[in-house]
Amino acid sequence: MTSNKVNQILFNALTPSNGGRLSKIVNGIIISTILITVVSIILESEPSIRIQYSHWFYCIEIGSTLLFTLEYIARLYVIPLDKEYCHLSPFKARLKYATSFFSVIDLLAIIPFIVSFFFVDLRILRLLRLVRIFKLTRYNTAMNTLLSVIKQEANAFLSVIFILMIILVIAASGVYYFERTAQPEHFGSILKSMWWAMVTLTTVGYGDVFPITPMGKLFSSVIMVMGIGLVALPAGILASGFSDKLHKNQDQYRKAVKISLRDGKISKIERELLKDIQLKNNLSDEEAEDIERMEYQRIEEEHYKHCPHCGKSLEHQF
Amino acid sequence: MTSNKVNQILFNALTPSNGGRLSKIVNGIIISTILITVVSIILESEPSIRIQYSHWFYCIEIGSTLLFTLEYIARLYVIPLDKEYCHLSPFKARLKYATSFFSVIDLLAIIPFIVSFFFVDLRILRLLRLVRIFKLTRYNTAMNTLLSVIKQEANAFLSVIFILMIILVIAASGVYYFERTAQPEHFGSILKSMWWAMVTLTTVGYGDVFPITPMGKLFSSVIMVMGIGLVALPAGILASGFSDKLHKNQDQYRKAVKISLRDGKISKIERELLKDIQLKNNLSDEEAEDIERMEYQRIEEEHYKHCPHCGKSLEHQF
Amino acid sequence: MTSNKVNQILFNALTPSNGGRLSKIVNGIIISTILITVVSIILESEPSIRIQYSHWFYCIEIGSTLLFTLEYIARLYVIPLDKEYCHLSPFKARLKYATSFFSVIDLLAIIPFIVSFFFVDLRILRLLRLVRIFKLTRYNTAMNTLLSVIKQEANAFLSVIFILMIILVIAASGVYYFERTAQPEHFGSILKSMWWAMVTLTTVGYGDVFPITPMGKLFSSVIMVMGIGLVALPAGILASGFSDKLHKNQDQYRKAVKISLRDGKISKIERELLKDIQLKNNLSDEEAEDIERMEYQRIEEEHYKHCPHCGKSLEHQF
Amino acid sequence: MTSNKVNQILFNALTPSNGGRLSKIVNGIIISTILITVVSIILESEPSIRIQYSHWFYCIEIGSTLLFTLEYIARLYVIPLDKEYCHLSPFKARLKYATSFFSVIDLLAIIPFIVSFFFVDLRILRLLRLVRIFKLTRYNTAMNTLLSVIKQEANAFLSVIFILMIILVIAASGVYYFERTAQPEHFGSILKSMWWAMVTLTTVGYGDVFPITPMGKLFSSVIMVMGIGLVALPAGILASGFSDKLHKNQDQYRKAVKISLRDGKISKIERELLKDIQLKNNLSDEEAEDIERMEYQRIEEEHYKHCPHCGKSLEHQF
Repeated sequence: MTSNKVNQILFNALTPSNGGRLSKIVNGIIISTILITVVSIILESEPSIRIQYSHWFYCIEIGSTLLFTLEYIARLYVIPLDKEYCHLSPFKARLKYATSFFSVIDLLAIIPFIVSFFFVDLRILRLLRLVRIFKLTRYNTAMNTLLSVIKQEANAFLSVIFILMIILVIAASGVYYFERTAQPEHFGSILKSMWWAMVTLTTVGYGDVFPITPMGKLFSSVIMVMGIGLVALPAGILASGFSDKLHKNQDQYRKAVKISLRDGKISKIERELLKDIQLKNNLSDEEAEDIERMEYQRIEEEHYKHCPHCGKSLEHQF
Repeated sequence: MTSNKVNQILFNALTPSNGGRLSKIVNGIIISTILITVVSIILESEPSIRIQYSHWFYCIEIGSTLLFTLEYIARLYVIPLDKEYCHLSPFKARLKYATSFFSVIDLLAIIPFIVSFFFVDLRILRLLRLVRIFKLTRYNTAMNTLLSVIKQEANAFLSVIFILMIILVIAASGVYYFERTAQPEHFGSILKSMWWAMVTLTTVGYGDVFPITPMGKLFSSVIMVMGIGLVALPAGILASGFSDKLHKNQDQYRKAVKISLRDGKISKIERELLKDIQLKNNLSDEEAEDIERMEYQRIEEEHYKHCPHCGKSLEHQF
Repeated sequence: MTSNKVNQILFNALTPSNGGRLSKIVNGIIISTILITVVSIILESEPSIRIQYSHWFYCIEIGSTLLFTLEYIARLYVIPLDKEYCHLSPFKARLKYATSFFSVIDLLAIIPFIVSFFFVDLRILRLLRLVRIFKLTRYNTAMNTLLSVIKQEANAFLSVIFILMIILVIAASGVYYFERTAQPEHFGSILKSMWWAMVTLTTVGYGDVFPITPMGKLFSSVIMVMGIGLVALPAGILASGFSDKLHKNQDQYRKAVKISLRDGKISKIERELLKDIQLKNNLSDEEAEDIERMEYQRIEEEHYKHCPHCGKSLEHQF
Repeated sequence: MTSNKVNQILFNALTPSNGGRLSKIVNGIIISTILITVVSIILESEPSIRIQYSHWFYCIEIGSTLLFTLEYIARLYVIPLDKEYCHLSPFKARLKYATSFFSVIDLLAIIPFIVSFFFVDLRILRLLRLVRIFKLTRYNTAMNTLLSVIKQEANAFLSVIFILMIILVIAASGVYYFERTAQPEHFGSILKSMWWAMVTLTTVGYGDVFPITPMGKLFSSVIMVMGIGLVALPAGILASGFSDKLHKNQDQYRKAVKISLRDGKISKIERELLKDIQLKNNLSDEEAEDIERMEYQRIEEEHYKHCPHCGKSLEHQF
């Protein structure tokens, strides 16, 4: 039983949305370590800084990898206590969790250092440590919302990317035809012209390559006007989907709060249900509190708008 | 009768949405050949690759043209069996089909090679083979959706293009007036200034031409702020139209699935009707399956939300 | 009475939406002349073309000015017959019309040539002839729609332009502070830095000026992310307003057609009312016809969807 | 009592929305002084102008600071008369107001000159005087609307900025990996590469840095297509939020006008209530008048659409 209790405490400490004091401390340490490690990787890439503070970077690296390794093992150990996995045997639960998105990210966050420590030290391995940034996904609700939007609109994205490919081929082929004699170094083949097509269709327009023949300029003009709309399609779909999702999630929580507040207060059972709905809708604690505060305010205002004697609305009386 | 049966089999094999095994193989071969041929045209434009692998490109070219020619003849031969054409005499059906969008694309996909093989070998003909990329339209639902959006919003596009023309003329004339003395090589005439106007209004901004006089810069600033909104108009119309269409098509299929599922299952007749609705709404098989799965799930959840004893909703009981 | 009849014929001939044969010819000639004259002004700006074809440009200029002068006088003469002006005395009607938007454009289209012919020949006057392009507004429904959107959202535009000004001043001042020592030729004063601010905030990014100091780059990054949303505001307001207006106009006409078609046909009186509604909603004849055709089709389909015996809907029966 | 009266007059004169003649004059002077002072700061930064007109700039500076100081003291003095602060003791009201947004801006607008006059004259202090531009916020309804949108969508913005940070790090790290050997001066560290990432993801594309290796170009292409949608997210959220807010504010005022006009006219009490609603919804006087005029017109039209004898609708009778 003692072992079970320790396990439970460990599990609670590692769950971000638990709300307990220990959980806040543990997760705070993990988030800080992720941020410190990402900043140190960015700074380390600057040669002058790398030479001067190499000792510090090494310490951060060893410390963070140790912490993340412990975290990985601990999570794998207590996962059978998780609601989603509790119906499986401990071994199966661990196996299933080990292949989940979050677990793979956790593993990828420690492997590069271990490989470069025990085996070979490749430059690329250092950059791969940046995968640690994705560990933040576990704590950031916006990332989860974004991922769910991308998943939901996956078909639309695939459709649009297919159309983009066709436009890219047409744009690159056209400009190759018109400019290949005038600028063989930039438009000497369709493959080379594709760089121009990408830079132009996304309206980045670095100015390293641009058409110089009159026909090339005319063709580019047509491609610019026509293509821009199509290249903006995925951005538009993503933006509207993300914005919709954010509002929808908030609305669902608001609805739940409204129902809970029918009797004027949120009971303990209602609180737990609200917590579940909050997590399901990827809302941060701040957002949830904001919504609740607004609902309380609304109820008060509603009350104020009705005559305290007869209960009739006072809203349209002026 | 044997001939009729062969015709029917051939017709089924060539119909993408038929779903039969033979159809899947035949259409898979056609799609692969289109992709291979497009990639080979792109690679062939690179001189170093062209010289080294010229033999391969020649083989791909002959093989693909042969296949597409056979496909073209076969489609023309079996078209009287098509639902859309079956009320016409075989000759009239073939004639009508031969002038349809898909048939013209199919013909254009084989003509360039035949011309360059038997008559003259022009460079432009090689690029024209890229029209084969449009053969994919038959298999890609997104392209069909896009084409139908363009058709539907054609009036809006024409209106906007007319306005674009006017802004282009005004922008080019203005900058020509202010910059023609300072940079006669770039702004020496309104026609020359139009390149600047296009590059600026689309916000590509290569940096090959830009105003240098104070008045030219002031005029450009006004044009930038005012013109950008107008140049973004077609992109906006297209993006919102495309997104609306995608969701509308899915909604129509969802509605049909919902009606079919009233009795809890999809009968064989309902399945055929759904297939028709799916095709009419340019939905791929994956999308259709997704929608059906979601509907089944919704029904299950609905069931779960009602008390199994009294049938009353359990949703608002917490 | 003969004079009255001639006046009426002249008035009808000059009204674009009249639909009569003479009106079509007269307005066709005017539109063609506008287009020819605009193209000739654009071509004339090219020195090599100007020298070679100067005789042609002169002829086009004299001819078109003559035609536009006649048009201006004729319109002023028959305007008392117009519905909008018929309640005024002929003199007052002409005076009021002479100060209207269309009449001023008509006058501005002929003045430059007359001034340069009789008085002084200034280069700027030649460019001012381009104002003729706005004469097309009378015939183009999209331009009218755009103007009405700009008028309707004028308050929003003014608000946004005020905000833009503030961001522009802040961006220019900031980059001036950070870059003035490093690049005094580009960022030597706030006024000079404003060109950079415009080019950056509109995302045109020519690349003629850009920050090079670390602090300047950091400040620019913040301005880019924050400012882009604000600079895109007028574009967004315009685009959504334009798209809404186009659909709203079509909906209003569709509603009117629907009501007229209740009895299955459009009577002569209904036709006149529809014509009025079409003009009020800035719809071109093609758009109006499209809507009518679609309504006829809808009625037919509706009919087909109901049982011919009992009148009940057949829609949900599969 | 005289003192009270003077205080009241002073308070009315300083309230922008008061509508009295004195208020209009006083606020007009303040707005003009703000604009003059901002223009003079911009012009002063140009060395040639600064030398020639340094006397003028000095006078403007002294005069404006004097006026703003008087304004600051006066506002602080009369604030206990304000509706929002009248329930507090005069001292507490003044203390609370002194820490409000508007009061801090007012203070910041006078401090730089006072410091540079009595203590040290630093260049940065001169630029800080530009904070005076924010004094306009008190008079401009659009700024208030924008601030309330930013406040309302703050959670969405924070989410998106977090995602932006991650993309920025990924883009910069990737291009650093592919380009660091080819262009160590531009992509020598992740920090340096971040400038490229910002310029590319915002589609500004100055062209001072761009990838030149094939792999770098391929990676950039992927980042461009994927990242652009995400960088456009805050812009999209802001634009749609601002547009929604503007229309919502107008709708609320329209609704209030409609209710007030039920009896055909706006009484004095209703006028005061409307004024309150107008201020709460950040509507300018012009916008409020526009809405009222439109409502009057709508009522008239409504009246016209009903038979004066039987009161039945005449709308669907043609």
